[in-house]
Amino acid sequence: MIIPRRRINRLRVTRLHEGSRSTRQDVVAVEEPLEIRVRFADGDAWRTRSVSVTMRTPGDDFELAAGFLFAEGLLSDRRDIQDISYCSGDEQQEYNLLEVRLTPSASFDAGLLNRNFYMTSSCGVCGKASLDAIEVQGCSPIADGTLTVPSEVLTGLPDALRAAQPVFEKTGGIHASALFDVEGRLLGLREDVGRHNALDKLIGREFLAGRLPLADRIVLVSGRTSFELLQKATMAGVPVVAAVGAPSSLAVDLARRFNVTLVGFTRATGFNVYAGRARVRT
Amino acid sequence: MIIPRRRINRLRVTRLHEGSRSTRQDVVAVEEPLEIRVRFADGDAWRTRSVSVTMRTPGDDFELAAGFLFAEGLLSDRRDIQDISYCSGDEQQEYNLLEVRLTPSASFDAGLLNRNFYMTSSCGVCGKASLDAIEVQGCSPIADGTLTVPSEVLTGLPDALRAAQPVFEKTGGIHASALFDVEGRLLGLREDVGRHNALDKLIGREFLAGRLPLADRIVLVSGRTSFELLQKATMAGVPVVAAVGAPSSLAVDLARRFNVTLVGFTRATGFNVYAGRARVRT
Repeated sequence: MIIPRRRINRLRVTRLHEGSRSTRQDVVAVEEPLEIRVRFADGDAWRTRSVSVTMRTPGDDFELAAGFLFAEGLLSDRRDIQDISYCSGDEQQEYNLLEVRLTPSASFDAGLLNRNFYMTSSCGVCGKASLDAIEVQGCSPIADGTLTVPSEVLTGLPDALRAAQPVFEKTGGIHASALFDVEGRLLGLREDVGRHNALDKLIGREFLAGRLPLADRIVLVSGRTSFELLQKATMAGVPVVAAVGAPSSLAVDLARRFNVTLVGFTRATGFNVYAGRARVRT
Repeated sequence: MIIPRRRINRLRVTRLHEGSRSTRQDVVAVEEPLEIRVRFADGDAWRTRSVSVTMRTPGDDFELAAGFLFAEGLLSDRRDIQDISYCSGDEQQEYNLLEVRLTPSASFDAGLLNRNFYMTSSCGVCGKASLDAIEVQGCSPIADGTLTVPSEVLTGLPDALRAAQPVFEKTGGIHASALFDVEGRLLGLREDVGRHNALDKLIGREFLAGRLPLADRIVLVSGRTSFELLQKATMAGVPVVAAVGAPSSLAVDLARRFNVTLVGFTRATGFNVYAGRARVRT
């Protein structure tokens, strides 16, 4: 598989191993800032607002922008997007600044940017308020449905991810999010130095293709699961989230409240189910 | 070692292992939002501003707040802090909202909150602009000095970290930042579900104790190194940053430009030096 050059950098490093010193070429995952701007109609006027600057690995930037806007509750309909393009600029930064242009009729509440998921108006902050805020954002619990996943499918996911993850193999320094069907077939894979970006890219891809909600899909993340990752997956309607690493307490709380099946420490030999075990078939 | 209860949650999980299913108690690292407010004098008036809401593991919150304010360039002198306290509130959230009260003479530029490290006024965003912005923030390259670290000290760090990391051992779900002297003695350790928080806590502890810059210290981080982690370490004057995981491209760029020794893939058997190898003695 060919890796686009800009996702990895080659550089010379000094390697110390078992007491001997050598110089060799190494590769690292590229990290570069991306600024996302939204251009939207405000009455008769057009306005442009910067909504995010994130440190990301270049590639799939339009999907990253779309996924971010969807997962943060700023956009809910892909038809609201007129187009997405990089802004022109000097060579060094021309791929680090992009604009999402909305249609004249799109509803975009720029005021949402000044609030956030963690806070309610009345109180300070706590885990429960964070979960309440997701509901306010229009996110409902995942339906029970009839979807179940055989445990052999779950134990097969990490190997399937590793086999398909070209940048990680080279750098050891990147997170991945992958989309599977319930038979364990890999449908999509996105990588990034930021784990939230990898998931935004994956969700953005499905959002732009009109495939949300992901009602019969499994998402696998390469690391640990946090509140933020579960929140994004839940916004996208994912019923089963599996992780190679451990969940945080609030990731578990969110999964239980929104009826998401949350699996952790996923290995070829087994896994832990933290929430929604009715969907796991043994 | 006694682990304060609120840093970990106990819960029941379903474990699938080699085809057999059991229910058992598990522990996960607690993740809860923390809002940091700053109260500062603005002419004759006192103002309060919310500067950050971060998802963190409870514990060492005052150090987290102080470290964040220092590492983001919002505070440079610990004597500007009058006191730090939790805000009162209902029981559920009383530890999730804290206020840093500054002295009347403290200089605090609330406008800095509207800018950030990644952006310059003239252009969009790129890695080089991000590095330039750190210089503008008042951060200078680490002096060459005479400090060197034997390679045996570096290879011994991961074991020393693991031996001292009680929450990680139980949850597998937490990041750590640790401070060592050049003989490899552990001087401090902070843990968090967010790696940037773990480093903020560690730096905040040293900042509050008046021990910055950390000119003859090594910082070890349990995961990968990013731009953000290197930026914080550089603000604190750390000459040697070692990581168990890989660095990103921008972490390497930052280390090279600010004369930081950056070590990655640190193991008992060896490591890679990505920048500043003159400080590593074999």
